[in-house]
Amino acid sequence: MTQSTITRSWVASANGHADFPLQNLPLGVFSLDGSAPRCGVAIGEHILDLQAARDFFDGEARRAVDATASGQLNEFFELGRGPRVALRERLLELLGEGSNLQDPLQALGAKVLPLAADCQMHMPAKINDYTDFYVGIEHAQNVGKLFRPDNPLLPNYKYVPIGYHGRASTIRLSGTEVRRPKGQTLPAGQTEPTFGPCARLDYELELGIWIGQGNAMGDSIAIGDAADHIAGFCLLNDWSARDIQAWEYQPLGPFLSKSFITSISPWVVTAEALEPFRKAQPARPEGDPQPLSYLLDTRDQAGGAFDIELEVLLSTASMREQNLPAHRLTLSNTRHMYWTVAQMVAHHSVNGCQLQAGDLFGSGTLSGPQAGQFGSLLEITEGGKKPIELASGEVRKFLEDGDEIILRARCSRDGFASIGFGECRGAVVAAR
Amino acid sequence: MTQSTITRSWVASANGHADFPLQNLPLGVFSLDGSAPRCGVAIGEHILDLQAARDFFDGEARRAVDATASGQLNEFFELGRGPRVALRERLLELLGEGSNLQDPLQALGAKVLPLAADCQMHMPAKINDYTDFYVGIEHAQNVGKLFRPDNPLLPNYKYVPIGYHGRASTIRLSGTEVRRPKGQTLPAGQTEPTFGPCARLDYELELGIWIGQGNAMGDSIAIGDAADHIAGFCLLNDWSARDIQAWEYQPLGPFLSKSFITSISPWVVTAEALEPFRKAQPARPEGDPQPLSYLLDTRDQAGGAFDIELEVLLSTASMREQNLPAHRLTLSNTRHMYWTVAQMVAHHSVNGCQLQAGDLFGSGTLSGPQAGQFGSLLEITEGGKKPIELASGEVRKFLEDGDEIILRARCSRDGFASIGFGECRGAVVAAR
Repeated sequence: MTQSTITRSWVASANGHADFPLQNLPLGVFSLDGSAPRCGVAIGEHILDLQAARDFFDGEARRAVDATASGQLNEFFELGRGPRVALRERLLELLGEGSNLQDPLQALGAKVLPLAADCQMHMPAKINDYTDFYVGIEHAQNVGKLFRPDNPLLPNYKYVPIGYHGRASTIRLSGTEVRRPKGQTLPAGQTEPTFGPCARLDYELELGIWIGQGNAMGDSIAIGDAADHIAGFCLLNDWSARDIQAWEYQPLGPFLSKSFITSISPWVVTAEALEPFRKAQPARPEGDPQPLSYLLDTRDQAGGAFDIELEVLLSTASMREQNLPAHRLTLSNTRHMYWTVAQMVAHHSVNGCQLQAGDLFGSGTLSGPQAGQFGSLLEITEGGKKPIELASGEVRKFLEDGDEIILRARCSRDGFASIGFGECRGAVVAAR
Repeated sequence: MTQSTITRSWVASANGHADFPLQNLPLGVFSLDGSAPRCGVAIGEHILDLQAARDFFDGEARRAVDATASGQLNEFFELGRGPRVALRERLLELLGEGSNLQDPLQALGAKVLPLAADCQMHMPAKINDYTDFYVGIEHAQNVGKLFRPDNPLLPNYKYVPIGYHGRASTIRLSGTEVRRPKGQTLPAGQTEPTFGPCARLDYELELGIWIGQGNAMGDSIAIGDAADHIAGFCLLNDWSARDIQAWEYQPLGPFLSKSFITSISPWVVTAEALEPFRKAQPARPEGDPQPLSYLLDTRDQAGGAFDIELEVLLSTASMREQNLPAHRLTLSNTRHMYWTVAQMVAHHSVNGCQLQAGDLFGSGTLSGPQAGQFGSLLEITEGGKKPIELASGEVRKFLEDGDEIILRARCSRDGFASIGFGECRGAVVAAR
């Protein structure tokens, strides 16, 4: 039986699992009963403990496992694509139906395959630098229209994968509470700001990108080599205080309106798992310029984009009390990225900027062009002008205390198992 | 003899030293003969090796010394003000004239007091996050005038200590070469960008601020407590690619135009050493608003500013060949900061953003209002329109390959020993 034909696992909960069937095998960091964090792989409702299973790996796969010994994934990310692929191939053998190692693995029980529900998740890696891009062109247009109805996209947008540095110290795992920030805001019609809790708290639906191998300062990563420098993907909520942002962001960009927290999902979905869901870069509309040479690569144009469905749900405190299901705010897709992840990597390093294993990129908000596809309340409510109505009888212009935002992602394609990213959750708590 | 009256050191080169007399005692990280980096204190032409001298400290000062054992200053920064002051008091005793420990210290020779010239300097701390502010109001006005002659300062400037996140991975020590970055630029009169080496490379004269004790995410640092969270100061050159910046910076701020390198001086000058050079905050011009309450503190207004003279020198390859002295580009002062360092700390954390020991702030460019006081070539040459002439017969609009920029700082006051910061150097090398 070759690996490509193994589609089912002897871990029964993996088969048909919404997020983590055998075909996914994302990496993460977990702990059990308060012990030190350990690196593992999600499989159905379980987590394979890589250190506990170390004896089942050798060669390049063993090298990958050994790079996870610290309980953080930075060293593993730094290894690049080769050992990551070897680890995946061996995991497919070990966990696939018919594996001759099923018995010895099962004999180890929860030592090697604890239930995920019994585990606590931790940050996958130490994040050195965090960069937030702005490659969701529909979002850029939707937001631009609010400020510049006639000219929503700035002249550089179709040439430059716009990005800016974000705050690394406040990136937190899904489930961390979102404390409403305080700050300066300019009340409508006033010329002097006031200080107090943010009144226009928003979410932003983004794809997170984990950087693999770094580059030396002064070197650039060619677009054709970018795949070695991308370790995996997650979901990212770029929580935004719109009133603070509007007042502070000129001339140097968003600062305190974003730096209070950024939430990410705990599992690192690999490029290999996403391979069946690759797409050609969407054709640029007629009249759009070709990318400059350092952003142009035939292979990237042919398969550098992704078809990943993205969903945002809202659950208010009242909805939870009434047992009402969460309200879907957004159904979007990574197809709305104007630039590929490889283009983001090539651009970021073209000036010699050093990337390091464990750096995190955000894609920027990934909205679609139509109602129901907008990746932020700023777009959905047109800046608070059109409140949304919820089944609980409540209305929302922006987020209120007790509101929980849930991001999900799913990849589906005929003839392939669907895979998901797990959730990225965050509930808003009152300002201190 | 009380400590405050000890003004001379038995380390002869310290007495009258331009930068490092007994009154300064800045901390840094050095190595000797390729050995592992160690923490030390500059005294005249020597460095006191804190680990080698460990037995001479006890109590809080010993706690400070022990926090430097890793060869990085992060843990020491995290201790806050108390142990840092205790260390300083003990160093004044040990190294002051008449110390009864002069003989045993001298007997250890270069083991405990190597010559700085024999040592290599290293980064003082692991920098987790880097934030660049924009508090130099004269610079903000000078630059604003180039774009908006009638309205140089944006409406938020006198309310918000404007800042943005910078790139931590490319902060390097004085002496590191500055590789000319490549990037996209929009040629004058064109509508399509081109790609190539930066043609408008510039320096920016800034004060660097090392963060001491951090805060938990969700907490804010009150302005009155900011002193515990500031570990020390250095010089910072925020190298800037003006042509890349002009094209990329809308709408999210500077990115690749800054992230190729930021240079800092190696010695961390403490708040205690700068105490005699504190000043009241310059009175706000009539009509300027009072700071909002979280930025207002009586003690900070009375003594939160600094009188530090700042100097920038340029030396071209041709000038060095002809043995011509470096050309002074800038003579400025930290008095041109519209916001104090305590205001920067209070603002940065007011939204609950977590600061961590070893974070670095840049002040923003510290220009004065007059010719000769401008902290960047953008201001000096008015964006390249007025080239400067050098004694070598060369002219400069922006920096050329081979040009070296040297930042210096000096504090002087009648009745007090002058202290300096050491140098922050960087020489430009050709793009790859």
